[in-house]
Amino acid sequence: MFAMTERGHGSNVRGILTEAHYSPSTQEFIIHTPCADAQKMYIGNSMKGNYASVFAQLIIDGQSQGPHCFIVPIRDKHGVMYPGVTAVDMKHKEGLHGVDNGILIFDNVRIPRENLLSKFGSVSADGVYSSPIQNKSCRFNAMLAALTPTRLGVTVQATAAMKVLDGRRQFGPKDQDEVKIIEHQTQYLRLMPHLAAVLALIFTNRFVAEMMDDALCSGEDLESNRTLQALVAGLKAYSTWQNVQCLQECRECTGGMGFMMENRIPAVKCDSDVFVTFEGDNMVMLQVVVRELMAKYTHQMGTSLVGGLIRNWTNSISDSLQTSFLGFSTDRVGDLSFLLKALAYRERVLQRSLAARLYEKVCVDNKDPFFDAWNSCLHHITSLALAHIHTVTLEQFALAVQRCPVEEDRALLTKFCLLHGTSLLYQERGWYLEHHYLTPSTSRQIRTQLLELCRSVKDEALKVVSDFNVPSCCIQAPIAGIANPRAQWAFYSPPDPRGKGTLILQKLI
Amino acid sequence: MFAMTERGHGSNVRGILTEAHYSPSTQEFIIHTPCADAQKMYIGNSMKGNYASVFAQLIIDGQSQGPHCFIVPIRDKHGVMYPGVTAVDMKHKEGLHGVDNGILIFDNVRIPRENLLSKFGSVSADGVYSSPIQNKSCRFNAMLAALTPTRLGVTVQATAAMKVLDGRRQFGPKDQDEVKIIEHQTQYLRLMPHLAAVLALIFTNRFVAEMMDDALCSGEDLESNRTLQALVAGLKAYSTWQNVQCLQECRECTGGMGFMMENRIPAVKCDSDVFVTFEGDNMVMLQVVVRELMAKYTHQMGTSLVGGLIRNWTNSISDSLQTSFLGFSTDRVGDLSFLLKALAYRERVLQRSLAARLYEKVCVDNKDPFFDAWNSCLHHITSLALAHIHTVTLEQFALAVQRCPVEEDRALLTKFCLLHGTSLLYQERGWYLEHHYLTPSTSRQIRTQLLELCRSVKDEALKVVSDFNVPSCCIQAPIAGIANPRAQWAFYSPPDPRGKGTLILQKLI
Repeated sequence: MFAMTERGHGSNVRGILTEAHYSPSTQEFIIHTPCADAQKMYIGNSMKGNYASVFAQLIIDGQSQGPHCFIVPIRDKHGVMYPGVTAVDMKHKEGLHGVDNGILIFDNVRIPRENLLSKFGSVSADGVYSSPIQNKSCRFNAMLAALTPTRLGVTVQATAAMKVLDGRRQFGPKDQDEVKIIEHQTQYLRLMPHLAAVLALIFTNRFVAEMMDDALCSGEDLESNRTLQALVAGLKAYSTWQNVQCLQECRECTGGMGFMMENRIPAVKCDSDVFVTFEGDNMVMLQVVVRELMAKYTHQMGTSLVGGLIRNWTNSISDSLQTSFLGFSTDRVGDLSFLLKALAYRERVLQRSLAARLYEKVCVDNKDPFFDAWNSCLHHITSLALAHIHTVTLEQFALAVQRCPVEEDRALLTKFCLLHGTSLLYQERGWYLEHHYLTPSTSRQIRTQLLELCRSVKDEALKVVSDFNVPSCCIQAPIAGIANPRAQWAFYSPPDPRGKGTLILQKLI
Repeated sequence: MFAMTERGHGSNVRGILTEAHYSPSTQEFIIHTPCADAQKMYIGNSMKGNYASVFAQLIIDGQSQGPHCFIVPIRDKHGVMYPGVTAVDMKHKEGLHGVDNGILIFDNVRIPRENLLSKFGSVSADGVYSSPIQNKSCRFNAMLAALTPTRLGVTVQATAAMKVLDGRRQFGPKDQDEVKIIEHQTQYLRLMPHLAAVLALIFTNRFVAEMMDDALCSGEDLESNRTLQALVAGLKAYSTWQNVQCLQECRECTGGMGFMMENRIPAVKCDSDVFVTFEGDNMVMLQVVVRELMAKYTHQMGTSLVGGLIRNWTNSISDSLQTSFLGFSTDRVGDLSFLLKALAYRERVLQRSLAARLYEKVCVDNKDPFFDAWNSCLHHITSLALAHIHTVTLEQFALAVQRCPVEEDRALLTKFCLLHGTSLLYQERGWYLEHHYLTPSTSRQIRTQLLELCRSVKDEALKVVSDFNVPSCCIQAPIAGIANPRAQWAFYSPPDPRGKGTLILQKLI
């Protein structure tokens, strides 16, 4: 089990309070919980597991070397607790019922010196600390980089959940009455953009997974690849929020059926709800993205930030000259290149203006502490992070479309790619109008385009979903046409001839 | 129990398939389920209840008089099933575990003639049908009007759920570390608009409940009060969606704590998720609102719809002249009158343009059947319905503020009222920019105003929430400072001095 989070410290790992004192006389570490806030909480498998990797402040001669990770025995194979360890069941949760979550409390638990995971720092027998990374802050960041692969895992899981869900929509091709439900404009307008986003995430995940494989295979340390860390953090946030929204829309669009356990939407919904929180809270993840974007930006601008800001201003002017043509020409908003440029433009402007705002607050006015300045820009920061991730997903989708060898598939993917870009642009049309990038009439055109694209892909959605190749044993939901033996009452019959053609709206007419 | 929904017909009550044949020889109705699609589904309490009010097509001499409601015995007090009735448990759901849901199937079940609820139609002993409402469609609408009070009930429940939730946020005034969480801009930006919306809904619900009381006490039939029906339908949709969003934000903003059952957010979330579906699916409810708005509009315009459209066009011009001053003056967006006018303007424009679009499609082109025309405008229709409800909630909030006798409270309520209006305007700033109602700079000002209002009310949120007077036995959540004896491990301790001042963001700096 993985024991990082504490009662008093969720996202702030740097501030954890569990202590690991080195005792040179016995060559042991003494793991201790000094106060209630230091209790390890939400620890998965804590009522059954044998060993935990516990994050604690490594303390030598009363001085902390920062958080390190220790292997601590919790109970033996017969379930007998290790001396000094207490585990408390936290019992019921909204979802993820397959794993328990509990509290671990350590009362001066002694473990051998070898149980310190020593990649980032080790202690000699006589109690001298050494680390390959001298700077304490860098060391800490390196340690957190180890979370990157599991964050990507969450992204993949969230994407998978959406794939499964998409298969559960009520597109029964033999079922006339049900098919009609998707014919309602609001139904396809709610569902199709999510399907486009799932495709975008599949391609983006592949791209990032390849980046990570390359890094790992070439022996590169993930901690030095901050671009990758930031990308994974941002994708984790975007995909898990997409997941929550997609599941909610699926639940609502399938009505009462979506509320029944046998159709499995509720369980997937409740299980994956916590994805936005664990493996790094999404709000924190977005800030990781922006930290990296700002670092890159400062690097590009060179040492003179003021000079950089002036150059930035000049570039910004030429930028809007370049794009004003697009902004006022109404016949090209359907081009993928227009959508890509628009997303990139927004990211660039948000980045520059954030740099200027932070610089103003911290350096010029010289009055705001960095935290206050950062916090007063938090809405701006999270917008920038999402704008960046949106751009990446559309770029990767566009590249995947280019690579697609089968013409027919490429045509279909192109439509979904345009839909993804149009949907992202539509969400932010207020911003584009504020920045004169869209005119009122182009903005209206974007809405028409969104409606039209959703309508045009709705009949091909089933084909796309079946190409996900989700095994039917993983779906097992009557609503998707796969019977569930424990819910024999739940079948979706072809409509009775007398019921044929009856539409929700008839009662309104 | 209330047995309306069928396997094949959820929202479309007009098309239900259960049959009630009158047998003059025995003076009985024979209730029958002719096919699988006619099975009554999702029926609450069907595994325990003794009687059901069953909606079925009343058939006399082979001709249907439309849906009517019958009292059908299901089982006796010893639990023995009534002959011909079958009940099947539908088992597990996402929430609402306190009530079972099941399927009822009728195999030629005989009930006495008196068991027809005869307000809207009755059958004489010799089998002659009579009704106070001659028109079959009007009769049906009158019957559905009976759902109005329970819809308002759902609205009240959704509001109550939000009230409880608001109390559960981590504002512990004695708990320094926790208080800091609300200091993050993204936290208060996510939570405060929901609190403002809860207040708006409380005042609007009171207003509508008074309307309904007046109607009922004066002996008025609810079916003739279509304005009230439409208002309740719209409020049902708006409040239940608000509820889902508010709960999701509360869950995410409270992190892992929000995922734990003892803090009760998950249960409230899962229970109330289905509110958007039952008592009339929200998408259908919004169409009920617009049906009424369009009927009123046609009435106002007189018999000549073409003349009406021309007048409409003229009014629209003068409208934008009236408001362009506001649109370009940047010093008044903080006035409540500006916000009220802006919301009313949007509703008016959406209504006029919808009338014009439908007229164009159905009457001028004369080619689209009404359903296709209506369906191709569905996004427009739902936008109009929500715009109408938004306007009503802001108006009622503003009136409540005016009536508030205590100056200090009035000042606080004014801030929340401005926040509600600003938040509604901000959501739709794209539309206002498209229609030149906001200039790019006023639009940016709206965002600044939203951030500033959220910041300014965050410290008074606890006062407002405590004024809801939700009894602590209804909250019983450790996260709100009320211990739960079944979850003794779940307490939120004051921060350890060593942990004091540690902020999530420190690791980013």
